[in-house]
Amino acid sequence: MAIVLGPHQYGKAEVRVVAVDRSSARHTLVDLNVSSSLRGDFTAAHTVGDNSHVLTTDSQKNTVFAFARDGVGTPEEFGLRLARHFAGSYAWITGARVAVESYGWERIPVGGRPHDHAFRQHGGEVRTAVVTVDGNDAYVLAGLTDLVVLKTTGSEFWGFPRDRYTTLAETHDRILATAVTARWRYDTGAEPDWDATFAGVRAALLETFATTHSRALQQSLYAMGEAVLERFPDIAEIRMSMPNRHHFLQDLSAFGLDNPDVVYHADDRPYGLIEGTVMRDDVASAELAWQGTPGFC
Amino acid sequence: MAIVLGPHQYGKAEVRVVAVDRSSARHTLVDLNVSSSLRGDFTAAHTVGDNSHVLTTDSQKNTVFAFARDGVGTPEEFGLRLARHFAGSYAWITGARVAVESYGWERIPVGGRPHDHAFRQHGGEVRTAVVTVDGNDAYVLAGLTDLVVLKTTGSEFWGFPRDRYTTLAETHDRILATAVTARWRYDTGAEPDWDATFAGVRAALLETFATTHSRALQQSLYAMGEAVLERFPDIAEIRMSMPNRHHFLQDLSAFGLDNPDVVYHADDRPYGLIEGTVMRDDVASAELAWQGTPGFC
Amino acid sequence: MAIVLGPHQYGKAEVRVVAVDRSSARHTLVDLNVSSSLRGDFTAAHTVGDNSHVLTTDSQKNTVFAFARDGVGTPEEFGLRLARHFAGSYAWITGARVAVESYGWERIPVGGRPHDHAFRQHGGEVRTAVVTVDGNDAYVLAGLTDLVVLKTTGSEFWGFPRDRYTTLAETHDRILATAVTARWRYDTGAEPDWDATFAGVRAALLETFATTHSRALQQSLYAMGEAVLERFPDIAEIRMSMPNRHHFLQDLSAFGLDNPDVVYHADDRPYGLIEGTVMRDDVASAELAWQGTPGFC
Amino acid sequence: MAIVLGPHQYGKAEVRVVAVDRSSARHTLVDLNVSSSLRGDFTAAHTVGDNSHVLTTDSQKNTVFAFARDGVGTPEEFGLRLARHFAGSYAWITGARVAVESYGWERIPVGGRPHDHAFRQHGGEVRTAVVTVDGNDAYVLAGLTDLVVLKTTGSEFWGFPRDRYTTLAETHDRILATAVTARWRYDTGAEPDWDATFAGVRAALLETFATTHSRALQQSLYAMGEAVLERFPDIAEIRMSMPNRHHFLQDLSAFGLDNPDVVYHADDRPYGLIEGTVMRDDVASAELAWQGTPGFC
Repeated sequence: MAIVLGPHQYGKAEVRVVAVDRSSARHTLVDLNVSSSLRGDFTAAHTVGDNSHVLTTDSQKNTVFAFARDGVGTPEEFGLRLARHFAGSYAWITGARVAVESYGWERIPVGGRPHDHAFRQHGGEVRTAVVTVDGNDAYVLAGLTDLVVLKTTGSEFWGFPRDRYTTLAETHDRILATAVTARWRYDTGAEPDWDATFAGVRAALLETFATTHSRALQQSLYAMGEAVLERFPDIAEIRMSMPNRHHFLQDLSAFGLDNPDVVYHADDRPYGLIEGTVMRDDVASAELAWQGTPGFC
Repeated sequence: MAIVLGPHQYGKAEVRVVAVDRSSARHTLVDLNVSSSLRGDFTAAHTVGDNSHVLTTDSQKNTVFAFARDGVGTPEEFGLRLARHFAGSYAWITGARVAVESYGWERIPVGGRPHDHAFRQHGGEVRTAVVTVDGNDAYVLAGLTDLVVLKTTGSEFWGFPRDRYTTLAETHDRILATAVTARWRYDTGAEPDWDATFAGVRAALLETFATTHSRALQQSLYAMGEAVLERFPDIAEIRMSMPNRHHFLQDLSAFGLDNPDVVYHADDRPYGLIEGTVMRDDVASAELAWQGTPGFC
Repeated sequence: MAIVLGPHQYGKAEVRVVAVDRSSARHTLVDLNVSSSLRGDFTAAHTVGDNSHVLTTDSQKNTVFAFARDGVGTPEEFGLRLARHFAGSYAWITGARVAVESYGWERIPVGGRPHDHAFRQHGGEVRTAVVTVDGNDAYVLAGLTDLVVLKTTGSEFWGFPRDRYTTLAETHDRILATAVTARWRYDTGAEPDWDATFAGVRAALLETFATTHSRALQQSLYAMGEAVLERFPDIAEIRMSMPNRHHFLQDLSAFGLDNPDVVYHADDRPYGLIEGTVMRDDVASAELAWQGTPGFC
Repeated sequence: MAIVLGPHQYGKAEVRVVAVDRSSARHTLVDLNVSSSLRGDFTAAHTVGDNSHVLTTDSQKNTVFAFARDGVGTPEEFGLRLARHFAGSYAWITGARVAVESYGWERIPVGGRPHDHAFRQHGGEVRTAVVTVDGNDAYVLAGLTDLVVLKTTGSEFWGFPRDRYTTLAETHDRILATAVTARWRYDTGAEPDWDATFAGVRAALLETFATTHSRALQQSLYAMGEAVLERFPDIAEIRMSMPNRHHFLQDLSAFGLDNPDVVYHADDRPYGLIEGTVMRDDVASAELAWQGTPGFC
């Protein structure tokens, strides 16, 4: 028996690059958080501190900034460009993963018209892209995090098994709230209109959450994923993580008050956590695409 | 010389109450985080553990939920109602402070129309209200936090003194970005349309940030405060805290690239922090209104 | 009526300076987060964007690093040195506030002996100092935050008034837990052994929390402050903020189980918040020392 | 082609259970954050909202509290007990994952002696355990997060390839700092002294970090993992994630000062991120043990 180095990777995390396009008076802005990881043969660095194979994380950072000089484009495109560059830079580097968070900005309205160079940042929700290049293969996961949604009705929860540890009452009308994290994988080689598809997926998630009469958060999750796959044939699978942000009806009877579904307490912890994949049954799995991406898989 | 109890207060922090109005099919929603503090004579609890004067923090929480049963209204109104109740509840309670954070939700669009009972939460920016009641006096601070704004041009910084520790270059065109926290105090007794005034102040802050050609973040701050006071005669003073979210032009010359104001690095720390008050010169100060509210004052 | 600039200040926040003393093989380390604010006449920067009075926040940062070259000493000393420098740097600067957070490190034990140059960081608890210089006057607040403590017994809560909104049961034995933030003000001109006094105050807070049989968190707070003032004559007052980290006994009866003070649920929100001052009755107040320091006062 | 449900799981996250042992006057305390996930056939809940297979997340929470009534023991034991219970509770449930965070408390010293029932919480560092049960198989990952360590010398970084995007200077003496997250997998069926092994692994990590003369953070990581496997034959593999907390020497030359490795700036972002596995070469992989645990693999 010997002790050996197993799977490993390294890179530069959270490069905060902002790029401005001033080619017209109507400026545009991209605001990204870029993390890169390299895969390949870096054994000597681990076992004897020999760095001759180590493309430094500082150089990875420099590359992110240098590549932004010529325009960034969509998060997916920027990720592809960087991951292909890193994976092809040295013989011993076999692959790269580039994860991008994109923060949204909208123009400040002045006198009813969007301003040319002044912006307000959207808070909360973040657009994401994770690109993995392995040799000649490239995988693209698009996604979003922290899309917080709530329905004040149209949600039930009943029919579950009852045993010694079950105290929950059944309900036929409750608040349903969650913070959606979704990541969807495009077919290998697909080159869709990344921005339009992102917007379309986001709309499908929102609309389906709103219009699905839900008997379980699982049902909402599945319906949302199914709507995405139905609308976008380029998407092979979608994975979602949806914490159940519990809103408990507050008992006011001690104060001589009823509470006809009016007053709720929003709880922090614990929370239900529903995680699932919706996929096409004819699509090969691609675990490499998901490696290193936090999630249930 | 003796050791004595000095200023003190206590209360329940962060009661997360959500109230739904289902009086029509088009539901509405308020989502609040309420913190209360009581002031008065609570000496015996401190010195001998005698709780006969202690309106418990648990009861304060119960009161928040009970009061929400009859409708919440605006954050300012809910704060006034609660603070007056607490301040008047026992002879030894002389005052109360109620702080409210309000989280915004918008209707999810479905088929181009806002849905009746499905919502998406705004992230980031939060509306605030702080109400202080002292005997018969009531003070109202409205406000907002984390309004993140950025200009890609129209910002300069030069003409500052240079000494041994000065290395900063002058600039005639830079990115200016900040996360605005603002709190404004209404005249005592004012009962404006709270929602309309909030919206108007927010618009004034945004528009003035956008349109002010800025030679210092201090200048933007003052112009923003001045615009608010000019538009809203009910407002006596406004205090703002504006961290300077530095965006540094990245030097790409080592890679043989120029950088004509295209690629920036967004830095976390350290950051400039600009804090200031804009006020009417004929208005009496009201330090009690600000007591316990984080800020520079 | 005119609109005017009211109180204002500005500075550089969160300069993360680490200084190493290598004068012997046994290295030592200070790890600080320094924030400075300047006060004085900066009106022209606000009203017309004239920066001729603005000692830039970038220069403030540079000064922090430059001053660390000659040794940092205690947080209180470093704050005094910086604040006096800033307050005396230009005629129009009348005062400065320097706030320091100090992160603790301990030597890693190797073979039972503390290592010369390898360290482990204490998490959580942070030592603080806030120095305010105003003309020739200097004020020093020492302190700590996030000192989390808990007693499994020796805590009661009963004898409080009961009214319509009271549902809380009385208890003669509960868990008491809190995260102490304390700041104490030294007498003007005092130059104690800053490190020894800090350690002594911290010990007094811990021991008194442990040994006080508590009928209210207020009683614990007061006893802790009193113990500090009794032991350290140089300290004029101490202010404490102590959130009540509720641990609720979990009802297990639905599962056929008793719960004789064994199983608790630790709740996040809401929480009680107890804030108070313990002071000497012959000491003049010094509100300037506290200006800009988050707290209840 | 059809759209189908892929891998999925659900459970209750972040149950904050605190258990006190009062069987002697010298109380003890365990303070846990428990998250459970169930795996099996929950298709109907997703596709048609039929909850007849859904052991509710509320019941999972209840089970955690009920099981704590009889004593919690180590995080690994509590996780095994819960995961085996959940996996065996219904025919359609094939597996369970239970993740535990354990927060450390130490006795407050009073008069030089540890107090019987008053405690101070360690901050920062957290002990973790992840137990996965799949049918009759059980996997145990022990671990820790946020173990923050730093060396003021004994760290070099040179010999890396230089290309167009390389600007980093070589160094033969730098500060090396990281926040260790480590998870180690025990051999299937191993039942070591969980507490003693945890303490031993932690000591091995700390000592090896301290005593390894490091030419790359990768080298430190590998040496740390190797030391753990050498000392503990029950451990099959260890995975570590180590962000490089950069401390950059500050250039003081503009102020006429040298900086002989004295003054550093601690940077937040970006940061290097080194991730790797150290394993025995004769051990079968066990990817199921790692499923759902954030990490690089």
